[in-house]
Amino acid sequence: MSTPTSPIPVAVLGATGTVGRRIVERMVRHPWFDLVEVAASERSTGRALGEAWHDPDALPTEVRTLPLRAPAGPFTAPLILSALPRAAAATIEPALVAEGRLVVSNASAGRMDPATPLVIPEVNPDHLELLGPAGTPVAGVVTNPNCAVIPMTMALAPLHEAFGVQAVVATTFQAVSGAGLPGPGSITMIDNLHPWIPGEEEKIAVEPNKLLGTVGEGRIQPAEMVIGVTSTRVPVLHGHLVDLSIRLRDTPSLDAVRARIRSWPGRAAELALPSLPPQPLRLADRPDRPQPRLDRDDAGGMGVTVGRIRECPVNGVRMAVMAHNLERGAAGAAVANAELVVRTGRVPHAGGQG
Amino acid sequence: MSTPTSPIPVAVLGATGTVGRRIVERMVRHPWFDLVEVAASERSTGRALGEAWHDPDALPTEVRTLPLRAPAGPFTAPLILSALPRAAAATIEPALVAEGRLVVSNASAGRMDPATPLVIPEVNPDHLELLGPAGTPVAGVVTNPNCAVIPMTMALAPLHEAFGVQAVVATTFQAVSGAGLPGPGSITMIDNLHPWIPGEEEKIAVEPNKLLGTVGEGRIQPAEMVIGVTSTRVPVLHGHLVDLSIRLRDTPSLDAVRARIRSWPGRAAELALPSLPPQPLRLADRPDRPQPRLDRDDAGGMGVTVGRIRECPVNGVRMAVMAHNLERGAAGAAVANAELVVRTGRVPHAGGQG
Amino acid sequence: MSTPTSPIPVAVLGATGTVGRRIVERMVRHPWFDLVEVAASERSTGRALGEAWHDPDALPTEVRTLPLRAPAGPFTAPLILSALPRAAAATIEPALVAEGRLVVSNASAGRMDPATPLVIPEVNPDHLELLGPAGTPVAGVVTNPNCAVIPMTMALAPLHEAFGVQAVVATTFQAVSGAGLPGPGSITMIDNLHPWIPGEEEKIAVEPNKLLGTVGEGRIQPAEMVIGVTSTRVPVLHGHLVDLSIRLRDTPSLDAVRARIRSWPGRAAELALPSLPPQPLRLADRPDRPQPRLDRDDAGGMGVTVGRIRECPVNGVRMAVMAHNLERGAAGAAVANAELVVRTGRVPHAGGQG
Amino acid sequence: MSTPTSPIPVAVLGATGTVGRRIVERMVRHPWFDLVEVAASERSTGRALGEAWHDPDALPTEVRTLPLRAPAGPFTAPLILSALPRAAAATIEPALVAEGRLVVSNASAGRMDPATPLVIPEVNPDHLELLGPAGTPVAGVVTNPNCAVIPMTMALAPLHEAFGVQAVVATTFQAVSGAGLPGPGSITMIDNLHPWIPGEEEKIAVEPNKLLGTVGEGRIQPAEMVIGVTSTRVPVLHGHLVDLSIRLRDTPSLDAVRARIRSWPGRAAELALPSLPPQPLRLADRPDRPQPRLDRDDAGGMGVTVGRIRECPVNGVRMAVMAHNLERGAAGAAVANAELVVRTGRVPHAGGQG
Repeated sequence: MSTPTSPIPVAVLGATGTVGRRIVERMVRHPWFDLVEVAASERSTGRALGEAWHDPDALPTEVRTLPLRAPAGPFTAPLILSALPRAAAATIEPALVAEGRLVVSNASAGRMDPATPLVIPEVNPDHLELLGPAGTPVAGVVTNPNCAVIPMTMALAPLHEAFGVQAVVATTFQAVSGAGLPGPGSITMIDNLHPWIPGEEEKIAVEPNKLLGTVGEGRIQPAEMVIGVTSTRVPVLHGHLVDLSIRLRDTPSLDAVRARIRSWPGRAAELALPSLPPQPLRLADRPDRPQPRLDRDDAGGMGVTVGRIRECPVNGVRMAVMAHNLERGAAGAAVANAELVVRTGRVPHAGGQG
Repeated sequence: MSTPTSPIPVAVLGATGTVGRRIVERMVRHPWFDLVEVAASERSTGRALGEAWHDPDALPTEVRTLPLRAPAGPFTAPLILSALPRAAAATIEPALVAEGRLVVSNASAGRMDPATPLVIPEVNPDHLELLGPAGTPVAGVVTNPNCAVIPMTMALAPLHEAFGVQAVVATTFQAVSGAGLPGPGSITMIDNLHPWIPGEEEKIAVEPNKLLGTVGEGRIQPAEMVIGVTSTRVPVLHGHLVDLSIRLRDTPSLDAVRARIRSWPGRAAELALPSLPPQPLRLADRPDRPQPRLDRDDAGGMGVTVGRIRECPVNGVRMAVMAHNLERGAAGAAVANAELVVRTGRVPHAGGQG
Repeated sequence: MSTPTSPIPVAVLGATGTVGRRIVERMVRHPWFDLVEVAASERSTGRALGEAWHDPDALPTEVRTLPLRAPAGPFTAPLILSALPRAAAATIEPALVAEGRLVVSNASAGRMDPATPLVIPEVNPDHLELLGPAGTPVAGVVTNPNCAVIPMTMALAPLHEAFGVQAVVATTFQAVSGAGLPGPGSITMIDNLHPWIPGEEEKIAVEPNKLLGTVGEGRIQPAEMVIGVTSTRVPVLHGHLVDLSIRLRDTPSLDAVRARIRSWPGRAAELALPSLPPQPLRLADRPDRPQPRLDRDDAGGMGVTVGRIRECPVNGVRMAVMAHNLERGAAGAAVANAELVVRTGRVPHAGGQG
Repeated sequence: MSTPTSPIPVAVLGATGTVGRRIVERMVRHPWFDLVEVAASERSTGRALGEAWHDPDALPTEVRTLPLRAPAGPFTAPLILSALPRAAAATIEPALVAEGRLVVSNASAGRMDPATPLVIPEVNPDHLELLGPAGTPVAGVVTNPNCAVIPMTMALAPLHEAFGVQAVVATTFQAVSGAGLPGPGSITMIDNLHPWIPGEEEKIAVEPNKLLGTVGEGRIQPAEMVIGVTSTRVPVLHGHLVDLSIRLRDTPSLDAVRARIRSWPGRAAELALPSLPPQPLRLADRPDRPQPRLDRDDAGGMGVTVGRIRECPVNGVRMAVMAHNLERGAAGAAVANAELVVRTGRVPHAGGQG
């Protein structure tokens, strides 16, 4: 287990987007990292970060004056957090790896690549072995899952470990900020909901199986949960809620399910990563929770709240899970993965080959 | 089949509530009925209907001046439409029946009473036999289902008839007007959703089985669908959407499912009830529909829109269905049932025993 | 006064935008007009109108199959309704006039041009004299005002005629549909309002003076009201509300102001234009009105509701006025102007020089 | 100037309401106060505060177990913060004063009482002289103004001091939380706004003149600004925005107005009250601000943001001002007044006569 003795230089790509901004905000107050480089789309290149910021006073002076680079670099930082759009990520991130960087990416581009770890620290930190053994600096890409997959898989993980998850019928209620700036048009979202998010259901059906799979011989053996998904967009600003009907291999009592959710330590507990709350899941103690606006900011936006655990007459267990889609579901997820690669000693030496 | 040769006198109970108002609005332009009496809660008794109306000019003069009676009457109309709250309905409706009235009720009080028909005209008009044979005037209560149950059951009915529905995992997105005036507090509903509606899931789990059951020997043999439900409240004004994952006995192709939905005539087609659209279900031809605001006013609020039909890897078929909760789900449902009792010759002679 | 004996062929430009769609919808059910040509932006050219329509079944067959032309034409219709964006209007509309067409435009491009009439039929139908005398067919452009200016000026007109309006402090609450599809981003508009609409306050400060000006010698002598404006965007779908503090030359009682608003016939009453309600202004009889959602659909969207008339200790009179921004404020405004040019015998002979 | 050497015992009345909760939250982390007693409505009496709390874990243990008293006491705390409803405040607060307590009240009941100080620390701390000289403990009531009056008057105060405010035309955009739990019904507020808040305009027209008045001979000589107000409710959760058109005695340049707003120290600067930001007003540096959701949490909810300063052709100067209605406009306002009475040595000795 490695704790940095001096700040680790990092670069943030896509620094002016919805997710990138929150990564920057997390970086400027982070105990381990030193934000030394930022990049945005070509048309912003050359401006100072502060000029592209909604509220420049909120940034420390030295960060405000960082020049916005082109997303392809060059960068000196060995560790790069990427909030690039999918298409840009697909070409730029591999090039950065080829230069020797370790890229922690929120983009969906490489998530299902067999050689790329898709990681939630509490769920599958061991999948980093795809990159090489702990303690060995390495170039590569580490991805975090889709913003609805994260809370969903975190609720499933303790059940899968203990009771075996066989099938899941999921319905998501996704906030507008999940669509990036400026969000869906307000003409669509006032007094309405949108019953389909293109491309989303496909991700939610496969990513949990990769996350809950086992790593071995340089590849992931995915779990075999059968997952059916409906993804909807609702007029909520932040916070994705997922309604889950779950079929288990075993037949635990509801109290056993509740106890399991409440006491699950996760697999990153001993790593004490700075962004993660001590307990991965919070069990709501009221029947009308989780609610996006009331629960999304729990644990600095990194809390995952489970509620409404009850019997499902069709599949066995029903529950709801909710987390902040921009924090736990994206920016905070990437930062936690960055902490994980640091803690496991995988960050390359500063400067890389750049 | 009976067509009224002169207008049938009707009374409306709970005439100033969210649902009652819409029943009144439907009555004043109805080809068969003559609104002769209105009642509201005790504290309104004695005022004219127009005084309690948001927009009195919208009412014909003779309706505007109708005095508001106490909900227990007395009434002269043989046919009474009730939008009373549950508790009031439980005592007042049986008393009206004892006086010889036929009460068409939107209240949940008597829905699951074994002797009381729970009816959607397109789904189970034959359940009226519980009251007695067609053509015979009768006193009694006819109820319509919960506002989310109506679109859900209308989507399930053609599948159940053709392929046998075994199990359903349902998730509802219910509009705020379903909670009655003034709706949930805006502090709850701005930038938020509410993941639980007390009492609602229980109704949605049982009413569809009664509706799709068979009538015989003075009782209903319910269908045996296993139904698991999550009910949520979303910041939408009108229009309940239900996401359905359906397990069928047979394994029809998705095209067969679509064709069945599109061509289902319903069981009220030959009755030509004035409030019902010619085709009970409309199949949306775009993947991002139904949407509450865009589809709820179809067919004067009586349209039921199905969309997103696709494979569910867990249960077989997945789809969404949506209808206007106050019209198709309540006021229009009661009026359609009133039309049904008229058409089948069950309305008692004017004046009853009152 | 001219009533068409056979349908007048019209073309609609910008037919697939927020406003253009509503013009098309008004045209297909209009007693005087025959929609023969439609145009949209270059990238839609060649498709049938029905292919670009959200709900093609809502269009009559002959309209559904109309091919989308380029906005510059050519067109055979002598009368053209334009919902083009400002920049396109600035070049295309004059070219159509040069070909001999009469263009009724919703665009802001030419509104303040001294030779172009800016018209609300009830307010200043005589301004059409800028184009030439009634009864004489003519090529030219007739514009309607900004969507917030229309209700505001309709409330001011009867007061100006009777009492002399000297100064106005206006605050607008503008709906998101006023910004065109897809509206402001939902991330901006959920749980928020936007205190500034670029370019809007400038229009609202000058257009009312042109509208209430006098025509003579081929030019408009504008009124001299001093107008200060704040324009805001609020999370409402349709309906612009304007709060007005008004200083009058005379000092009528509030009852006299109310009577004036209620009884104002407007200047188009004798023309009996099909789209206009018999009474231009409706005085709300409740203190909590007008409300956008409850009042915007009055008179098919062409109603203008005034309310909250009371003393302003600073300027004398205070009131609120509200109308549907897409109907009375745009599409219906253009159609009413088209009716006005027909009624006053100014439409050129079919075919023009095209 | 007095700094407490030991924590001052305080009681909070109405502790479970919208405002009372926020006072409790501010108290439990306050450097000067010790929350020793809480009270709520009669029907909660006897329960522990934590039982009535939405999120009991957020309260320190010793506060969670405080029993809820009846609002009339008895209390031992010499200093009482009251968030009682108007009617309850009118009877209970004078009784507490008679017992020797100093009551800092958010209720509107006594605000315009000539003997009761109505105070914003930055605006008129000297009005406390109504109670007696600084340094002398005293029983009495100190009130804070209406939640829209606070930001409005804070924007007017520096202008009034420097240039003389003669007249104001104000339009408010008030958030739903200003109406208390559960807020206006969501049926009213979805896709709508409400153009009238009963009783509100009357308060906004008079309270600023009392606040900007001069104290002498045991009474307030109010300022003589002529104020006309429209109050509206908009679908925003928190944050009241006020649009102001201002007539000044002098004719400063807009730059002088901006400089005055930006540099105004307020009259509490030297008191360094813990809840107040160092600079009372923040001048937004973007033309599209203040926005409620983006600016309301500035300075822990105590920031007041001014923007859109520009010329008003009618009255001279126009601007917008916004603040969090529950924090700066209510709970934080009361706490700041409590700090002010402590700092000026007016809190009675613990225990009073109780």
